[in-house]
Amino acid sequence: METLDVDGRRFTAARATAADLPAIVSLLADDVLGAERESKQLEPYEAAFRELDSDPHQLLIAVRDDDGAIVGTMQLTLIPGLARAGAKRLLIEAVRLAPATRGSGLGTALFGWAHDYGRAHGATLAQLTSDKTRADAHRFYARLGYIASHEGFKSAL
Amino acid sequence: METLDVDGRRFTAARATAADLPAIVSLLADDVLGAERESKQLEPYEAAFRELDSDPHQLLIAVRDDDGAIVGTMQLTLIPGLARAGAKRLLIEAVRLAPATRGSGLGTALFGWAHDYGRAHGATLAQLTSDKTRADAHRFYARLGYIASHEGFKSAL
Repeated sequence: METLDVDGRRFTAARATAADLPAIVSLLADDVLGAERESKQLEPYEAAFRELDSDPHQLLIAVRDDDGAIVGTMQLTLIPGLARAGAKRLLIEAVRLAPATRGSGLGTALFGWAHDYGRAHGATLAQLTSDKTRADAHRFYARLGYIASHEGFKSAL
Repeated sequence: METLDVDGRRFTAARATAADLPAIVSLLADDVLGAERESKQLEPYEAAFRELDSDPHQLLIAVRDDDGAIVGTMQLTLIPGLARAGAKRLLIEAVRLAPATRGSGLGTALFGWAHDYGRAHGATLAQLTSDKTRADAHRFYARLGYIASHEGFKSAL
């Protein structure tokens, strides 16, 4: 567990457990895009969590405030690869922070921790995609030093 | 090994081995962006390959023509996750096809095979990012049904 001190408030970031799923799913659904995409049933998330949790290259994070309430989540994936002279990538997916925490500096602290995690595991490149409608998120990523150098393509299978 | 029949020419796609590395690295470097990013040394690629090859969620593909020459590569990663009702993602990275094969339909056949691989492993979403300067690639992905819905952000760690 990692402590994130943000402007006098104390948060923790830790590997999520099955008991955290309802709160994490609520965060995913409490979002303008997630509201249309997420399920009311917990079962599909439980199955996905079991698979994710058994893969040592995946890390699902639960962020708690000082009352122990889950107020944030992100998923980190370590991806070894040949391109860029054998660069290992840290893929960041499914980032959500509770609306009440926005602007508090928690996002910056959480990404700082995630980048440290990536470096500690040999990653030299962090990457993520963000829906083109999320203008606030794009400004946040730019402030963190991310470059919007790529188009992000998706296709249903 | 998978056979890809493309307009009367026969290609194969198979899991890459360590012996394929020099040819795959040459493909990565024979590219307007790759030329600046890839290394002349093989060692970093060998180390990355060992790590990639030992991860059951990674699949590095070597595509051969009917003379056995390596003319293409891509890396597939299966990523379980909670978002989108527990959707598993097929991440496609480091796609390269030898210039001589372009326009032959090999790319379309290879992506068709990759999507089948993803579906067979439970993925319901394929995703990739492509440098914003690669206009030809973007037209190709659009023809395959990909939507450029996201910004692709990267940051050195």
